[in-house]
Amino acid sequence: MLSTDICIIGAGPVGLFAVFEAGLLKMRCHVVDALAQTGGQLSEIYPKKPIYDIPGYPEVLAGDLVKNLEKQIEPFKPTFTLGERVERFTRLDDGSFIVYTVAGTEISCKIIVIAAGLGSFEPRKPAIEHLALYEGKGVNYMILDPEKFRDQRVVIAGGGDSALDWTIFLANVAKEVTLVHRGTTFRGVPESAEKVQHLAEAGKIKLLLKSNVVGVSGEDKLEAVTISFNNEEDIIQETDYFIPLFGLTPKLGPLEDWDLELQDGAIVVNTFDYSTSIEGVYAIGDINTYPGKLKLILCGFHEAALMAQSAYKYIYPDKKYTLKYTTVNGVPTL
Amino acid sequence: MLSTDICIIGAGPVGLFAVFEAGLLKMRCHVVDALAQTGGQLSEIYPKKPIYDIPGYPEVLAGDLVKNLEKQIEPFKPTFTLGERVERFTRLDDGSFIVYTVAGTEISCKIIVIAAGLGSFEPRKPAIEHLALYEGKGVNYMILDPEKFRDQRVVIAGGGDSALDWTIFLANVAKEVTLVHRGTTFRGVPESAEKVQHLAEAGKIKLLLKSNVVGVSGEDKLEAVTISFNNEEDIIQETDYFIPLFGLTPKLGPLEDWDLELQDGAIVVNTFDYSTSIEGVYAIGDINTYPGKLKLILCGFHEAALMAQSAYKYIYPDKKYTLKYTTVNGVPTL
Ligand SMILES: Cc1cc2nc3c(=O)[nH]c(=O)nc-3n(C[C@H](O)[C@H](O)[C@H](O)COP(=O)(O)OP(=O)(O)OC[C@H]3O[C@@H](n4cnc5c(N)ncnc54)[C@H](O)[C@@H]3O)c2cc1C
Ligand SMILES: Cc1cc2nc3c(=O)[nH]c(=O)nc-3n(C[C@H](O)[C@H](O)[C@H](O)COP(=O)(O)OP(=O)(O)OC[C@H]3O[C@@H](n4cnc5c(N)ncnc54)[C@H](O)[C@@H]3O)c2cc1C
Repeated sequence: MLSTDICIIGAGPVGLFAVFEAGLLKMRCHVVDALAQTGGQLSEIYPKKPIYDIPGYPEVLAGDLVKNLEKQIEPFKPTFTLGERVERFTRLDDGSFIVYTVAGTEISCKIIVIAAGLGSFEPRKPAIEHLALYEGKGVNYMILDPEKFRDQRVVIAGGGDSALDWTIFLANVAKEVTLVHRGTTFRGVPESAEKVQHLAEAGKIKLLLKSNVVGVSGEDKLEAVTISFNNEEDIIQETDYFIPLFGLTPKLGPLEDWDLELQDGAIVVNTFDYSTSIEGVYAIGDINTYPGKLKLILCGFHEAALMAQSAYKYIYPDKKYTLKYTTVNGVPTL
Repeated sequence: MLSTDICIIGAGPVGLFAVFEAGLLKMRCHVVDALAQTGGQLSEIYPKKPIYDIPGYPEVLAGDLVKNLEKQIEPFKPTFTLGERVERFTRLDDGSFIVYTVAGTEISCKIIVIAAGLGSFEPRKPAIEHLALYEGKGVNYMILDPEKFRDQRVVIAGGGDSALDWTIFLANVAKEVTLVHRGTTFRGVPESAEKVQHLAEAGKIKLLLKSNVVGVSGEDKLEAVTISFNNEEDIIQETDYFIPLFGLTPKLGPLEDWDLELQDGAIVVNTFDYSTSIEGVYAIGDINTYPGKLKLILCGFHEAALMAQSAYKYIYPDKKYTLKYTTVNGVPTL
């Protein structure tokens, strides 16, 4: 079992900055996210768009802000469990918690910080009969470790940046890559679309436009997909993996059953320290609500700072603490 | 009389960012500060020191943060009154305010935002008899417009960065510059100290070490200073200006008489919108207090955002408003 001071649920900008504020007080953090990467909405929805209201940044690309936050928390050596949704947590008699993910990971911690944004990002799944049977057995909605696909046959479906980017990347890794796309043009950035066209023309990948994966089959694991191709007769294509990449949407999901006071899908907190109705559990960022709440990144940063002070007092009730400026005291390392 | 939507008292980082948040809602701002420059504590106390806890900045020099904030608020064309302390304000029957500075400037506004930090930065004045008689008549504690000293005779006193920087600058502007310093070494950055030495050796300025200005004299205005030089006999030196630069310290000052609820020298606000006990008057940044308050820059940024939403509703009670992301809507110009 993993063990840490603070388990942060959600690796969005606010969850990441919480690592920093906790680290200043020498509390260690483990961060869990359902996504394969950090950054929450910024990485999943608008990585290449500029944000204008991060204080001190007249303009910053969402993806760059995430990179900068990652660099800022490096001294505190946070650990991560990515690609796993937190399902539930229990409180032990000594007041500490165990956090459980959908994949069976267990994290023992003194404090839980819920920085779950609009909820856990979950894949949009195409409506294909029996698809669920093959999940984890050849069907993947997210790519955690591309090495898994080395020298394998892969069918990707989708027309956005994810589908394009992974097609390009896996062209050099997998034995065989087929990209199946409903339309004739792509929603992703034009450069990526062009690159995919070039790869197809060079025979490095197989590109099927005006097409749809309509069936999956195999004995114990996925062995083939059925593709409806350009209104012609269905193709049955043998493959080791089928990766539908139709985007991810945030779903509140398991969080609704955590016995926390909710209001319009957000966790009610007080503004003294952003603690929830359960002692030792805090909620910061888009996931919380209080009078005046704004779902802005900069507000989540403030909430993280006040949370950390309170968490410190909760963990070390007997230690005296006075706020120290980073300019004066520097940044400790853990 | 100047007229604006919001008069911000204090041009520290929080006052500056308040211009941005107000600007997003198309409210115009006028900013007043007792200092000659913007940036508050960051510019006056530690411009060349790094800050590590500005979110998204693993490290940023205080002075650079101020520059970035200034750039960020440019689209909103804020106006400034610098070098003037706000003395008081009155509330008119229509609910609007007039803000009065020590120099007689009057600002008509709908909202007052107090972002006064630790108080108004006031010069440390040397204990010289009759000095106060010559204030504004040859004695200056701050340099607002260096052109004022063109072709004039100037005596500067002090051993820190301010004294060094202005000596170097005025060497090219004034007819005659004398730097009087108590010690033999300077507290300012070594490069500046060296430069001053060079200027002295080249005869461009007069440098008097182990010296003190001990007297001022003149009919209607300053005409000469008396300098106790290196334990030798006092020198009487004719001059047009005497500029003692012994640093500035924040003083709560007039703010204590503004009928606002105070606690330990800070203005009590609620965390819903950081409004004070007077309707239409807000307090944000180091100057305010509430349960959980941390005197951190990032907290002031959050407070500015919530203040602006509330101020908008106060000015436009009938307008419908929904929060818009800068990424989606961009930054309007005023
Ligand atoms: C198009 C767009 C433009 C925007 N523009 C701006 C802007 O200009 N300025 C601004 O301030 N804000 C903007 N926002 C809002 C901003 O993105 C959010 O305020 C910010 O992402 C909130 O950060 P967070 O860390 O609280 O949550 P999120 O970024 O939502 O991250 C939460 C993370 O928690 C994970 N999670 C949730 N539940 C679980 C679980 N049970 N187990 C595991 N992981 C879980 C999710 O997968 C997600 O990765 C914009 C949003 C969008 C969509
Ligand atoms: C050495 C040092 C290191 C620090 N390090 C950090 C750090 O690492 N991280 C961090 O977050 N914070 C740090 N701080 C604290 C940080 O500087 C303050 O939180 C910040 O400056 C507060 O900003 P502000 O805009 O509220 O007020 P201030 O920066 O204090 O600005 C207030 C301004 O209001 C003006 N003013 C006040 N009253 C009047 C009046 N009546 N009329 C006209 N003008 C008036 C003042 O002259 C001043 O310029 C540090 C402070 C110091 C001194």
